[in-house]
This record gives sequence, structure tokens and C-alpha cells, in this order.
Amino acid sequence: MKYAILFGGASFEHEISIVSAIALKKVLKNIGSFIFLDADGDFYQIAEKNMKSTHFSEGGYKKEEKLTITKGGFLKKGLFKSGMLEGFDVVINLVHGAQGEDGTLASLLDFYGIKYIGPRKEASVVSFNKWFTKLYAKGVGLKSVEYILLDINRKREIPFDLPVIVKPLRLGSSIGVSVVKEKDELDFALDVAFEFDDEVLVEPFIDGIEEYNVAGCKTGEGWCIGTIESPKKEGFLDFEQKYMDFSRTESIANTDIDEGLQKELVNSFKKVYANLFEGALVRCDFFVKDGEILLNEINPIPGSLANYLFDDFSECLDKLSGSLPKKRVIKPDYAYIGLVQSAKGPKTGSGR
Amino acid sequence: MKYAILFGGASFEHEISIVSAIALKKVLKNIGSFIFLDADGDFYQIAEKNMKSTHFSEGGYKKEEKLTITKGGFLKKGLFKSGMLEGFDVVINLVHGAQGEDGTLASLLDFYGIKYIGPRKEASVVSFNKWFTKLYAKGVGLKSVEYILLDINRKREIPFDLPVIVKPLRLGSSIGVSVVKEKDELDFALDVAFEFDDEVLVEPFIDGIEEYNVAGCKTGEGWCIGTIESPKKEGFLDFEQKYMDFSRTESIANTDIDEGLQKELVNSFKKVYANLFEGALVRCDFFVKDGEILLNEINPIPGSLANYLFDDFSECLDKLSGSLPKKRVIKPDYAYIGLVQSAKGPKTGSGR
Repeated sequence: MKYAILFGGASFEHEISIVSAIALKKVLKNIGSFIFLDADGDFYQIAEKNMKSTHFSEGGYKKEEKLTITKGGFLKKGLFKSGMLEGFDVVINLVHGAQGEDGTLASLLDFYGIKYIGPRKEASVVSFNKWFTKLYAKGVGLKSVEYILLDINRKREIPFDLPVIVKPLRLGSSIGVSVVKEKDELDFALDVAFEFDDEVLVEPFIDGIEEYNVAGCKTGEGWCIGTIESPKKEGFLDFEQKYMDFSRTESIANTDIDEGLQKELVNSFKKVYANLFEGALVRCDFFVKDGEILLNEINPIPGSLANYLFDDFSECLDKLSGSLPKKRVIKPDYAYIGLVQSAKGPKTGSGR
Repeated sequence: MKYAILFGGASFEHEISIVSAIALKKVLKNIGSFIFLDADGDFYQIAEKNMKSTHFSEGGYKKEEKLTITKGGFLKKGLFKSGMLEGFDVVINLVHGAQGEDGTLASLLDFYGIKYIGPRKEASVVSFNKWFTKLYAKGVGLKSVEYILLDINRKREIPFDLPVIVKPLRLGSSIGVSVVKEKDELDFALDVAFEFDDEVLVEPFIDGIEEYNVAGCKTGEGWCIGTIESPKKEGFLDFEQKYMDFSRTESIANTDIDEGLQKELVNSFKKVYANLFEGALVRCDFFVKDGEILLNEINPIPGSLANYLFDDFSECLDKLSGSLPKKRVIKPDYAYIGLVQSAKGPKTGSGR
């Protein structure tokens, strides 16, 4: 199986996606193409030797070959000849944040019939919008932290005691997120969050809560589940700390989590993944509170796809690629249209 | 305001969309372009005189000018010259069913920066998936009919007494839907529904329940709400009956619905519409049971946009066009990327 890595995107996680692609290059041997989506919405084919951060931050990528997304793939348009980008079977959607995780690229790839690893549009919408994640959690029988949804145009009333955690509704990362411990910090935290979204989620902040990350995917040959990780952190991780993760490539040791809990976490993961996330390798972040598992968030494109959690990362992707969701092909037969008199137009009285 | 009507699509409602576009042509004076998306995913500019059903059913449209969706609009590619399709300010997404109502076209139009009337991707996903509609209804404080979700690979256990109504999870119409009155009809009805989707929703069927349709949109100048309609029907409408609606162009008389109920219905409509459906003119179908309002379904692109319910349909669209949701422009500043040592590559030791 040969892969094309699609990265970049017009999002606050644009840079993180670049870092993630560079990390993936180190751990996956079978990458045939690197496709960069810049913030203006243009696609470029990036030569492997140019996969370093300055090539993007300094704009060097603009000298590389431009691509157009089209039916069945990406079109290279040279001055004198054009042809399809070759050298891959499946695209890995590694565009973190907006465009990549909100369903936009999933829609484009589906529309143009390009095979890809990544969340489909429903899965994207459910995981990108933190409110929908909670509604979905409830729907599959899982709990999540209680919350209130605030609108930029309405009153800022919060029914929880401090500390609370304030999150823009739709960002796929910790950007714009703050923990508020003192009453006089609340308005500022909300102002910051509303910079990023017109809707903001506020939850009670539970300091020192046990957190567990479970990553995996369902393939035609069964489940691939990574080592469960309990991220060690002091209080709340900021953007910078958290996203050093995107450049991680060293696999972690087995953690000493109780076996019963591990089973429960995996079961919860499978409930979340169910059918909705088919085609994607995702990471679910769970809390455990008073012995109960709560879904915190679903990361449908984890940084470098959480390679460091898997013993057999490459094999896992290959299996996933072999069992991507298929679209039902729909062809109209025009059997119905003749029935609607008014649609026929004045000159077609054939009675079809 | 000049409109381009986008219709067709690879869906079971392909033909219905054609009928809907022909009807809209009759009621809207300011249509500058007709853009047809055929089942193969190709866009065509259709001359106004060719807007009749046989032009599509007989394939005549293939002789018209092909369009490519691109940044800022649709590109016409003549043999000797190419240029952007002109004559419109805003696209009306009139692709009913898959692609149009599931978020695919919303994503494409957003990605390419084309202004449009129609549900955005989150709104599409929530209304297209009938289970998500129920989860969302709960989230905004509305009830819906109880249900069970069945998976094609699991046991067919239904906890309700007959009659029940069986619905494929994701079709935007009555296709594949059956009312089951006798026990020995159930398996066949499920087989039919599973033809269209791997997940099927089963609800108790409440014969003779009061049904009310509320259509409208939120604009910068306030709400436009159409006349509330209580569709008169005998039992369950099949596909054919229901979709004669798509060719309706005659406005309806005011209905004699109790004023208090009308207010409650409009309030429920506004709760559903909230922010999620901004940019779209939608129709919500409500049930009233024991004096309580239940959300039945959200139609985010009603047939010919339910023009017949509005006194001022054209004005309403113009107002909506003037207040379409704006995307936040995100430009990376590459401030973060220099921090990640491993992303820099071997040749850039500048310490940036």
C-alpha cells in the first residue's frame, strides 16, 4: 500500500499539520507523495527532500508543482503537459483542525472519488463540534462532563462553581481554551474563546482527574487498538506543550493501567467508533471520575496518527486501507420524472 | 440579487431536484444561471430554454457547456477560451438528498469560497442523519418520537408494538420508508430499508397524528416564516404523492390553526434553526401529540424551497442572501513551527 500524505489547510492547526507530516515521514516507509494544502486553498506536490518546516514558513513550497483536485485524484498541470499525480493508492488526511477535521476535505475526497484514511463527513462534524460530541456520547450510552453552551450574542450565565474550563465550540485543539479559577478572569477567558467561535462551551474543571487516551481503528481484519496512555500532566496543558505530541515518533512503554479498566476503556472506545468513524484511525480521550468513564473528546486525526501508541502502526494502516467504507453508487433512472406533468415542458407531450 | 440554481446530484432524489429547479424557475424572476450536477459528478451550464425534464432524462444536457468548480465560482472551459461563469451573486443549493443535503456540496462551496443559500455542513449532517436529528432535538430541548436504531449486521429486535415506521437512516425523503402493520411484513420492510442504508431507524407509527410544517429562515432583517401548513393526508404518503410537492408553485391559503399553537410551533422552529441553519431556508415537520410538540424531521432544502408557503418568497431569499454566514479568515503566521526542533530538518540550524 502506498500513501499520499495530505497536510496543511486553512486552520489554526496549519503549522501543527506540517510538523505532523514531517513526523509521519519518519515512521512510515511507504509514502509515495506529499500533498500540501496552503492557507489560500491551493494544493502543491512537495518533494520529499523539501519536507522541513522552513520550506513552508518561508514560502519555498510555492515554487513546487501545483495540483488541482479532480475526479479520481490530483491533476498536475505543467506548461506543456498535464497528468495525474501518481505513486499512491490511498491519501492519508493529516490536515488537523478546520478543513481536515470538520468534514470539508472528507467531502472533497468523497466527491472526487479519492480513497482516503480519515474521518468521513458525519464523523468529522460530530467530533469537531464539542457540543455534538456530547450529544453523540449520550446517544451511544456514554457520559461526558456536564456543560453549558454560550452564544456570543446572549447572556454569559454559568451555572457552575469555579474552576471552569472555557472552550471555543469548534476548534480541534487547545487553542482558545482556558481554565478559569478566579471570578474576575472569566470574562477575559470568554472573550478569548469568542475570538475563535461564536459559540463557547463551559464545563466544570476537575483538577487532577484521571485521563486515558485510546487510539485505534476497525479494519476488515478486526480492531487495531493502541497502547492505552494516561498522559502525565500538571494541571492543564497549553497549546505548545500539548502539540509537541505532533512530532512524537518514539513508541511508549506499556502503561500499568488496571486490566479491568483497560477493558472498559476499549469497550467505550468501540462504542464511540462504532460505524461512524469507519475509515479513520482516531483517538478518544476519556476521563474516569468516581469509577465512571466519561468521554472528553474525539480526535479524528490524532497528531501523526498517534503512531507511537502502536506496535504495528504501518500494518494497522495497511489493514485499514484495505477496508475503507464504500459509497453506494446511485444512478438516476428517470422513471419518476415523466410523472410530474409540470416538469415536462411545453414541447414534450409524449406521456412518458 | 441574481441567483444560480444548482440542481441534480448523485442521489435518489436526482430527478426530484430537476423538477424542483423547473418549479423555481417559474416563481423566481432573478435567476441568472442554471447549473446541473449530473450523476457522474460533472457540472453543466444549462440554457434557460432547456430547463425541461426530457433534456436531462434523454441526456441532451451533455451537449451544453461543462463547468469546473474552482476558487470563487465555476469555470467555463471553451476550446479556445475559458472564463468564469457570470450572471449571479449567490448560488441556491437545490440538490435534494445526498450530496446536496448531506454536506458534500456545502463543503465544496465553502472550500471554493462560493456564496450560497443552503445548509452548511454541520446543519446538513444533523438533518440528513435521522438519528442525529433526534440527538439534536434533545439538545435544543425538543422531544421527538421514540426510536430504535438497527444495524444491518446485528439482530433485528424491535421493542415497540405494531404498527411501526421503518426508515433508512440517511435518505432525505420517503424512499425506502414503510409502515409495518402486520408482523410478517416487518422483515421485508427492513430488507427494503437496508437496501438504502446500513442503518435503519424504527419508530412507533402513530396513525392520524397531527402534523405541521413550518418553513423559514433567519436573515439580518429578522425572521421570515412561511404560512404554517398542516398537510392533509391519508395515512402515510408514499414517495410519489409526497414529491408532487416539488413541483408546487401555487401559494396556499392561510390555515385555521389555533393561534397559541402557531406561536408554539414557530418557537420550536426557531429553537431548531437557532444558529445551526444560518444561511438556509429550511422546513421543519412537527407532530403534535397529547398537546406536546415533537420534532419529526428537518428538511434543509425543501422542494422548490417551499415557495408556496411565503407571501414574499423572493424578498425573503434576497434578505437571506444579504446575511449569509461569514467564514473567519485564518492565515498561519508560522510562529509555532520554529519551536519544534524535529521539524526543522538537518539544514536549518538558524534557531528560528
